[in-house]
Amino acid sequence: MAEPIKIGLLGMGVVGTGVLENLAENQEKLTNQIGRSLTVTKAFVRPSKEKERLAEKFDLTLVYEVEEILQDSEIAIVIETMGTIEPAKAYISASLKAGKHVVTANKDLLATHGTELIELAAENQVNLYYEASVAGGIPILRTLATSFAGDNISKVLGIVNGTTNFMLTKMVQEQRTYQDTLDEATALGFAESDPTNDVDGIDAAYKMVILSKFAFGMTITMDQMTIRGIRGLSAEDVAVAGKLGYAVKLIGSAIKINDSIHTEVGPVLVPKNHPLAAVQNEYNAVFVESSGIGESMYYGPGAGGRPTGTSIVADLAAIAQEIENGTTGRPFSPYQQELKLTPKDQIINSYFFSLEMPDHSGQFLKLAEIFTKLDAGFEQVSQAKGDGEKARVVIITHPISETTYAEIQNQIQLKTKFKFISSMKVMEEK
Amino acid sequence: MAEPIKIGLLGMGVVGTGVLENLAENQEKLTNQIGRSLTVTKAFVRPSKEKERLAEKFDLTLVYEVEEILQDSEIAIVIETMGTIEPAKAYISASLKAGKHVVTANKDLLATHGTELIELAAENQVNLYYEASVAGGIPILRTLATSFAGDNISKVLGIVNGTTNFMLTKMVQEQRTYQDTLDEATALGFAESDPTNDVDGIDAAYKMVILSKFAFGMTITMDQMTIRGIRGLSAEDVAVAGKLGYAVKLIGSAIKINDSIHTEVGPVLVPKNHPLAAVQNEYNAVFVESSGIGESMYYGPGAGGRPTGTSIVADLAAIAQEIENGTTGRPFSPYQQELKLTPKDQIINSYFFSLEMPDHSGQFLKLAEIFTKLDAGFEQVSQAKGDGEKARVVIITHPISETTYAEIQNQIQLKTKFKFISSMKVMEEK
Repeated sequence: MAEPIKIGLLGMGVVGTGVLENLAENQEKLTNQIGRSLTVTKAFVRPSKEKERLAEKFDLTLVYEVEEILQDSEIAIVIETMGTIEPAKAYISASLKAGKHVVTANKDLLATHGTELIELAAENQVNLYYEASVAGGIPILRTLATSFAGDNISKVLGIVNGTTNFMLTKMVQEQRTYQDTLDEATALGFAESDPTNDVDGIDAAYKMVILSKFAFGMTITMDQMTIRGIRGLSAEDVAVAGKLGYAVKLIGSAIKINDSIHTEVGPVLVPKNHPLAAVQNEYNAVFVESSGIGESMYYGPGAGGRPTGTSIVADLAAIAQEIENGTTGRPFSPYQQELKLTPKDQIINSYFFSLEMPDHSGQFLKLAEIFTKLDAGFEQVSQAKGDGEKARVVIITHPISETTYAEIQNQIQLKTKFKFISSMKVMEEK
Repeated sequence: MAEPIKIGLLGMGVVGTGVLENLAENQEKLTNQIGRSLTVTKAFVRPSKEKERLAEKFDLTLVYEVEEILQDSEIAIVIETMGTIEPAKAYISASLKAGKHVVTANKDLLATHGTELIELAAENQVNLYYEASVAGGIPILRTLATSFAGDNISKVLGIVNGTTNFMLTKMVQEQRTYQDTLDEATALGFAESDPTNDVDGIDAAYKMVILSKFAFGMTITMDQMTIRGIRGLSAEDVAVAGKLGYAVKLIGSAIKINDSIHTEVGPVLVPKNHPLAAVQNEYNAVFVESSGIGESMYYGPGAGGRPTGTSIVADLAAIAQEIENGTTGRPFSPYQQELKLTPKDQIINSYFFSLEMPDHSGQFLKLAEIFTKLDAGFEQVSQAKGDGEKARVVIITHPISETTYAEIQNQIQLKTKFKFISSMKVMEEK
């Protein structure tokens, strides 16, 4: 049999270890399919007893200078599992320039410097694969790049952040508060000690940048998206939404309207009979609508060492096969279109408004006038008890444009004494 | 740009037309990715006005002798959408021998003569792809072949027959009878006029043969499987299962135990919190358990011209890319293992028994003695009203082996006056 394909690993934390475990467990199956084995020969880490133990277990050499991997001509593939932008970006760039293929799970980096790195890979005729960067263990990127090659996608809706989905599941099922569920997520290790990226929707937004590229061939930037998280979401609003037949989920959406796309992240009321409403706890799912397949959904774990490591090993297997075939250098997602953003007046949605009832008569009439003048019909109105003595008014509108929505928000603040608590988009009934 | 890749179509019914529609709609996207266009130049059909109309619409030539495609040296790929074994098998074999790649949705053929055809494709260095043969629009086979290349699958559970899932959904949600929902499925065009293959589990079994090959590399034959359908399933048993917290689903399962596999099709009680329980109506889903990813699920339409046609076009795109790369001839699923079947005493499951209460005292004691002697504990026992005056006893056991299960069935008939109504496996709680 041919020589093993040699691999260098940058970072050997939870994900790096997951890669090593998966490779060890499935070496025979991989060799059975590819005809060559895959071996991690070196790992770049900070010195520690634990890393030494792992190095012995997986029969690899620890290196404390990254050049020992970047300048090792025997290493064909570099796996980056360090995370964050620098020095990961510098190391990946150097690897690509050195003619090494790169596999990474680094969503932050791909979402912010993807174009540059993809071009660098193409220039050097090497592969840059990153299945693990979106929805951990769910094989969604390769599926979009291959199985949807001849389909016309209109919508990608994702639950792509496990921490917030865990929190929202607990808020819905156990009537708990935002802070309480965040504390539990932190204790369980789902949320970082600084949970900003999770609860403010930034982590989900990184993933939507990548999904938009694979689904529509268009590269958007973070500042072209509306990004809202679930920080401070009130337990009362979650409860009211439940009574009206909806689960609140943090949804990343990328939607094609004519030839333009609109990508955003925010809390959304999902009808309980929609497949996304059944996605519980830390699980992720990506729901796709297309003219060919229709509705399909891809469900699985969004994080964790073994699931993320499996996606990395799938990338390794694909690269190994291309090395064997002599066909490396093709982009992970070859579909390319010029970016065109949907104007706000063409983005149409139903909205949920939660308002605190003022202690003045005649205010409800003013509210009704605002909606009526802007041609925004009520689909449901309900008055619910708030946490204290104040009553809460909840409105779900018929579909309106984003410009109308903004104008309603504006006028409520200007012309009524209602206190604005929150608003969320409402997903269509299936 | 290079010449278009020319394709011949065998059969132009619902699926064939779906292929043509998908190709027409996504030609630009495909060319954008592959660098070549894909054109169906000829379709082999029986003469009809409607086919003539379609031929004009999609700018192709109708042929009434299959040789006009098989002997056309310009045609690189043949799509077979005729279904059933012969003459499809003869045409596919002739195409492969003529050096043409073949894409087919023919599950019956693949499940019964797959090995022979796969070998024939390898001998002739051409591709034989059949994503559309399992779960219509769900991209499950390519996912198993690529994204699970470096993962160790332990279980594949599929709702892979849309007709029966539609019927079971209606039986559960609307408390309707088997016959009533079968009539509706027939009227809606889901079920064939002879629904045997659907309701007796045969269609699902064909798909499980193919899924077993992709998940475990092992080729089983139909006669090595236990195949049960839902024919005559009683509305009362469905209702009782519902009260106990389960949805009845027709499940195809392929399970690895040590180095052996067990593949079967039958009605199963699925806990309501399992993702498969939420798969409604004619939708399909494949649930996979593996040591790397953990639990993942792939959901979408199991049939229909456009979804099935999309899977066929994805196969076409993959072949076109391999033609461009000069890398054709690799099997769709390269993973190969020797078949080893799990002995019946190692297949462990909880079971649901539905029995009609006899009009004799002391019978329940006899029943309890049978279970106790065979070390089969009761997990739940409930007495439910039957359709007439007779009472029904329902038992869910703790996990027991298939040999114990068979012995219980046997002894109930020999030693008690209970009338055996039905038994079903019970899926573990998550």
